[in-house]
Amino acid sequence: MKNGQISIKEIARLSGVSVATVSRVINDNGRFSNETRDKVLKIIQEHQYETNSIAKSLRMNKSQTIGVLVPDISNEFFAAVVLEIESFFFEEGYSTIICNTAKDAKKEKEYLKTLDGKMVDGLVCISGQEEVPTDILKRKVPTVCIDRRPKMDTNVAFVESDHYEGGRLATHKLIEKGCAEIVLLTKKNNLSSVNERLKGYKDALAGAGLPVKDERIVYTDPKKSSLEAAKEAIQGLVDAGVPFDGIFATNDWLALGALLFIQETGYKVPEQVKIVGFDNNLISQYCDPPITTINQDKASLANKACRILLDMIDGVPGSIERHQIVPVSLVERKTT
Amino acid sequence: MKNGQISIKEIARLSGVSVATVSRVINDNGRFSNETRDKVLKIIQEHQYETNSIAKSLRMNKSQTIGVLVPDISNEFFAAVVLEIESFFFEEGYSTIICNTAKDAKKEKEYLKTLDGKMVDGLVCISGQEEVPTDILKRKVPTVCIDRRPKMDTNVAFVESDHYEGGRLATHKLIEKGCAEIVLLTKKNNLSSVNERLKGYKDALAGAGLPVKDERIVYTDPKKSSLEAAKEAIQGLVDAGVPFDGIFATNDWLALGALLFIQETGYKVPEQVKIVGFDNNLISQYCDPPITTINQDKASLANKACRILLDMIDGVPGSIERHQIVPVSLVERKTT
Repeated sequence: MKNGQISIKEIARLSGVSVATVSRVINDNGRFSNETRDKVLKIIQEHQYETNSIAKSLRMNKSQTIGVLVPDISNEFFAAVVLEIESFFFEEGYSTIICNTAKDAKKEKEYLKTLDGKMVDGLVCISGQEEVPTDILKRKVPTVCIDRRPKMDTNVAFVESDHYEGGRLATHKLIEKGCAEIVLLTKKNNLSSVNERLKGYKDALAGAGLPVKDERIVYTDPKKSSLEAAKEAIQGLVDAGVPFDGIFATNDWLALGALLFIQETGYKVPEQVKIVGFDNNLISQYCDPPITTINQDKASLANKACRILLDMIDGVPGSIERHQIVPVSLVERKTT
Repeated sequence: MKNGQISIKEIARLSGVSVATVSRVINDNGRFSNETRDKVLKIIQEHQYETNSIAKSLRMNKSQTIGVLVPDISNEFFAAVVLEIESFFFEEGYSTIICNTAKDAKKEKEYLKTLDGKMVDGLVCISGQEEVPTDILKRKVPTVCIDRRPKMDTNVAFVESDHYEGGRLATHKLIEKGCAEIVLLTKKNNLSSVNERLKGYKDALAGAGLPVKDERIVYTDPKKSSLEAAKEAIQGLVDAGVPFDGIFATNDWLALGALLFIQETGYKVPEQVKIVGFDNNLISQYCDPPITTINQDKASLANKACRILLDMIDGVPGSIERHQIVPVSLVERKTT
């Protein structure tokens, strides 16, 4: 909470009560009469009407709390985004409470209800289900989605990486390094992010005059760990006799699984097969060889989302840009 | 929420109201008279007095919410523990709300207050500061600490790994593999966990008749990343002309930093220097060479803590074992 320009001592003097009483009123904590409350609030409002966040919070019955729904905090990308959100809002005088939904539709709904009941002032939803079920909220809570396209309604905004460009950059790098038979390796789901990366892959191939072949678009088993699922998928390609010299994996764990499998079967990376991942996780930096990957700008994603949400909460006049796209970049390492 | 043995339909029939009304009463959501509420609750209580968690929650004015304070959700160990906690309590009909304190004393206090204000039924505190400031809570909230020794008071329990045994096992493995000049590499802080690992290191050396030398106990700069700090610390040893043939690092990122530095300077691991880490992070498994490390049983830590907390919340009669220690194990890989 910012104190603004008037001190608690000054508020106490002007309202004719003790500092302890002002503190109780401000924190809405302990005993004081309605009369005292009104007196103290009046002084605060007179002196700080526009800027003081405490008065504002009391006036608007705010909880100064933000809720974050995240599908898996043990996923490095999500964890990094959540930490940025927490840090942004702490600076603004908000507590952030985080709920882990485990990509489970039932949990996502339960936690939305929990956060609603805790009277959060705003919500950040990071991807889990294909559609965020904000219609179950009792109140109209300002909401911003990251990485997932929501059903558009007036209370929901959306910030995402440029997944299309990521898919294009990754595929283009493999083509530039001489690959002609490039496999796309991705988890089976219907998230907008994955569909965009796939589009980027196809356009990069088409742009280089290379054919797009269905047999080279490989979906991994979503019930298995990315590592296991990737190994199994590449084994399937080998068994089916599909030749390939490059792999674009839509996350770094899939890329690592492919890398490990190829090394186990005696082939050399990058000499015989080249690989590009996605996310720029720490694992891509320290595995052997380190993996070329697409970096998502986690800080920028989080900060844009927080900025929008804060504007929605504060009711900033003028139109808020409700869909923002954050650029990605390619980090070249030793698998290309 | 468990439905217990009586169905909502049955409750509706017995209390003479609609299913929708029962649902509104149970969820405390929407309009109904006090009379209706009492009628419905009476039926629920008559049929489910001992076991039904919904009736209990209404009877005891509980929020069915658990708060978790965690210093850094991007730390793989903490994230894994938090996920286990969330999963345990969801099964028991509780929502878990997570607050990230960034190891910052001010934030830890703010978030404790926030969780207190959200009327959580219980708290799990994972290490951050050296002492958990539970004295700032307004209510007496059942609390369990993981990995950090709390100021013991009647409302606080404590679950930790056997850090002493971890330190002893790590050091013993290095001795067994022929090391005689073993460095302990650890972050500068005063956490009980680190002190116990240090004690295990000293006892293992003493047990093998090897001297404990202060110059081989190296504290890294806590302001830098573990990777950077470890490199700097090993550089310091080399500059000071301190000979060593083994390193026990108290976390895997410190171990990786030491490994990378030693490789960069042209030495061979494990031929010339052997390394053991701590935590069994994914990075220790996939770096080159993979690192021998001490595994902490995250599931067991979380589940013991949750069990204790649930017993405290439910007021289970009889004494609860308020300090529990979870065994660790050594995972041998390629750095020893």
